[in-house]
Amino acid sequence: MEKKVMQTYLYDFYGDLLTEHQRNIYEEYVWNDLSLSEIAQEKGISRQGVHDLVRRCDRILADYEEKLHLLERFLKNKEKILKIQTLSRNYQNGKEAQAMAEIEAISNEILEEL
Amino acid sequence: MEKKVMQTYLYDFYGDLLTEHQRNIYEEYVWNDLSLSEIAQEKGISRQGVHDLVRRCDRILADYEEKLHLLERFLKNKEKILKIQTLSRNYQNGKEAQAMAEIEAISNEILEEL
Repeated sequence: MEKKVMQTYLYDFYGDLLTEHQRNIYEEYVWNDLSLSEIAQEKGISRQGVHDLVRRCDRILADYEEKLHLLERFLKNKEKILKIQTLSRNYQNGKEAQAMAEIEAISNEILEEL
Repeated sequence: MEKKVMQTYLYDFYGDLLTEHQRNIYEEYVWNDLSLSEIAQEKGISRQGVHDLVRRCDRILADYEEKLHLLERFLKNKEKILKIQTLSRNYQNGKEAQAMAEIEAISNEILEEL
């Protein structure tokens, strides 16, 4: 996964655990894709200050993921639900029993891991 | 939901965010269902100390739930996946198109909220 995409995911999951100040800066970085210098200018703080805050937020978010695994579980579940969605959309008449068996197997897997 | 059940759920989701000391005490309370006095005796601390720690852990876990909503989302998703499981198990021949349409609708709902 590309770094910025992963930072955005982690921020979506754990952003509410950052302080308001951290969120203000980090959102400019991950959501609005501003450079460190642009953020520094906009917020009236040093580029080094922005750099340190972004790195610190990266670390905090990574620590939460290491403990809670929300992103990891989200990606796994999304893949399985997408399979269910595809099976239910594209089942062929006469093969519905097979599709239903697969759907049941996948739903069982998800339930075991929820 | 019964209080002990909710405490157990919240501990399952967020327990790794507590300190080791907090986990040691809180697990005796939520998993092993010991009384405050029994834990105090076992750990060699005062009953009041156990009481305060348990209340503090309750608050920490509730704060995480307020921000991350893992339990709330888990319960919603579980309900939907159980519906998918039931539909796939119990579909009737000749009504598979209807069951598949429902399964697709539910999987869409889950994907939107993941």
